[in-house]
Amino acid sequence: MSDIKFTTDNKLDCDIIFFNNIDFSLESGEKLKNLKIAFKTFGKLNSEKSNGILVCHALTGDQYVTGNNPITKKNGWWSRMVGPNKPIDTNKFFVICSNVIGGCAGSTGPKELNEDKNIIYGGEFPSVTIKDMVKAQSLLVDALNISKLFSVIGGSMGAMQALQWAIDFPEKISNIIHIAGALKHSAQNIAFHEVGRQAIMNDPVWKKGTYSDNSERPERGLSVARMIAHITYLSEDAMHRKFGRKLQSRDIISFGFDADFQVESYLRYQGKSFVERFDANSYLYLTRAMDYFDYDETFNKKIEFSQNSNDHLKYLIVSFTSDWLFPTQESKIIVNNLNQLSKQVSFLEIETDKGHDSFLLDEPQLDTLINGFLVSNFKELNE
Amino acid sequence: MSDIKFTTDNKLDCDIIFFNNIDFSLESGEKLKNLKIAFKTFGKLNSEKSNGILVCHALTGDQYVTGNNPITKKNGWWSRMVGPNKPIDTNKFFVICSNVIGGCAGSTGPKELNEDKNIIYGGEFPSVTIKDMVKAQSLLVDALNISKLFSVIGGSMGAMQALQWAIDFPEKISNIIHIAGALKHSAQNIAFHEVGRQAIMNDPVWKKGTYSDNSERPERGLSVARMIAHITYLSEDAMHRKFGRKLQSRDIISFGFDADFQVESYLRYQGKSFVERFDANSYLYLTRAMDYFDYDETFNKKIEFSQNSNDHLKYLIVSFTSDWLFPTQESKIIVNNLNQLSKQVSFLEIETDKGHDSFLLDEPQLDTLINGFLVSNFKELNE
Repeated sequence: MSDIKFTTDNKLDCDIIFFNNIDFSLESGEKLKNLKIAFKTFGKLNSEKSNGILVCHALTGDQYVTGNNPITKKNGWWSRMVGPNKPIDTNKFFVICSNVIGGCAGSTGPKELNEDKNIIYGGEFPSVTIKDMVKAQSLLVDALNISKLFSVIGGSMGAMQALQWAIDFPEKISNIIHIAGALKHSAQNIAFHEVGRQAIMNDPVWKKGTYSDNSERPERGLSVARMIAHITYLSEDAMHRKFGRKLQSRDIISFGFDADFQVESYLRYQGKSFVERFDANSYLYLTRAMDYFDYDETFNKKIEFSQNSNDHLKYLIVSFTSDWLFPTQESKIIVNNLNQLSKQVSFLEIETDKGHDSFLLDEPQLDTLINGFLVSNFKELNE
Repeated sequence: MSDIKFTTDNKLDCDIIFFNNIDFSLESGEKLKNLKIAFKTFGKLNSEKSNGILVCHALTGDQYVTGNNPITKKNGWWSRMVGPNKPIDTNKFFVICSNVIGGCAGSTGPKELNEDKNIIYGGEFPSVTIKDMVKAQSLLVDALNISKLFSVIGGSMGAMQALQWAIDFPEKISNIIHIAGALKHSAQNIAFHEVGRQAIMNDPVWKKGTYSDNSERPERGLSVARMIAHITYLSEDAMHRKFGRKLQSRDIISFGFDADFQVESYLRYQGKSFVERFDANSYLYLTRAMDYFDYDETFNKKIEFSQNSNDHLKYLIVSFTSDWLFPTQESKIIVNNLNQLSKQVSFLEIETDKGHDSFLLDEPQLDTLINGFLVSNFKELNE
């Protein structure tokens, strides 16, 4: 039996749950003896414990979904969506957001201590998958004494987690909201991730992930990886609208390799600010987890097998017209599969030119959709 | 007056023309006192000197358009298009292909000696533009005693050069074939180039471009830059068809950072083989030249100004449906502009899923189109 302890980390301004002497088996076959999950909660759990919502973060997200993020000193990544009187209303719901395992904001991951060896895991951290992340989240939810979450919500890698919840723990949730995701990571997506990983692993400072011993971190590689990824998060139209060929702080081109164009300067800034808040090894592990995600052939069986026919699990699937990383076609495959299985599924493709990152940006249609879905379903459940 | 000398480079298996004591002004305002152009010719110039075709290479191309490439030991980059009885038939036409200035296959570029200082140029090479490349090509054509080329043909960066010929030297050409190009480099294209440059400049071996003194070259950075670019040359469909999520030499995933997926292994190979044949500084200079290319606002004026109304310059503009780097829309802008100016323009969008690289690959429709355009126009001119 594992030894569970809750504590508060003042520096990280979040809660931490420790599972000590646990036998946490990963999909790879490897095991973690201790597990630590850093998380935040917002709002209050009602007496029936029926208003819990788990928000799953994307690749470079963290537990700071709203409020202040002590690492970046900025607002949380979904502050516009989560909070009192916001679309995911913390006056009504109890929102939980935890850092995924393999991450770098306090949960067990490559940046943390391998207690067996008394050294930082680094490149010796075992491979984690989306399934492993969700399994860890389910332990946290159990420890919070919530037997059934009202909803699991996420975009991008968060959507993969939401889908994994529907596959692995259908009896523990009432609905999922799946935004800008897919049943599998495509060849092109794997390719972009692989180039990012090569940029990191080619950085001489990386040293097979052991850089925690040194004064230098592989910031140059990580920054290039972030720049590549950032291009894929925007649409070409959004880039054109935002930057076009506008020059940065000059009237004419410099005939050199300075950031002549605003888009260059913007990308350099994105790379630079990212390395201040993210760990290069975590980037490797989490991109790999996304690459490994694949229910293309097995989704129907998994869903059919895991849910009896009178289950009430509801699905809201959302995509964006200009998202070329997780295009609408991928969402439609999920919807078609769920329809074939006679599941309760709603689907909306939102017209926007903001690309994959639309779910993080100001998209009033998404706000209305999520709020409407949550409120009406919560009302139905409690009638 | 410049001092012109022709010679043959046995190692490079090509011709070299030296312009010594020339005052070659670049668009940046800087000057080159000596100029060297490495080139290959195929077929025979006819007695009227009317059958000359200049083929312009793309970013990572060279003068080895067909036949054996002594650097890669492989066939030239457009062997399927150029040669005896091929679509650009060297039994009929005299084909010239020269390495662009700023390149790394023998023409004046960052890899070559700065004779003023007796050191390799490296990062001190002046910025070059597409206009500069074309100006150098025009000197070569003059030195070959060809007063009017029959055609200038190119894809991607080669298309930019073809368009530049139409702008700067309309009286010296009969037609251009412009494949997979645009009036300007878009924000997204600049962004991808910038990330590649950052990968190179972040490589600690690069040392502001002075690596020629050292035993090591910035191969890791250049390899990442090539991998990024390579993704953009393919379409998502082509990647899916070619690789999907197929595993490389294994039945199950490795739960690690080896190349599990074929697409990863393919990209790593692309990166690795590229650094054996290409210079990192050249990559910086040539990507920059493409970024600077911009006739978005000025094209009509330039074309109108440079050509009198009874000129016979013909344009063939070709695009590919799945090219997301230089999408058809960009070609259509050129066609619309030329139509407004009542120029003779033909346009074809070829249906293919092979992406931007289609012009280098087996596309029989492109072969037929180019051959038909050349043969019919050559016949018309000589009637």
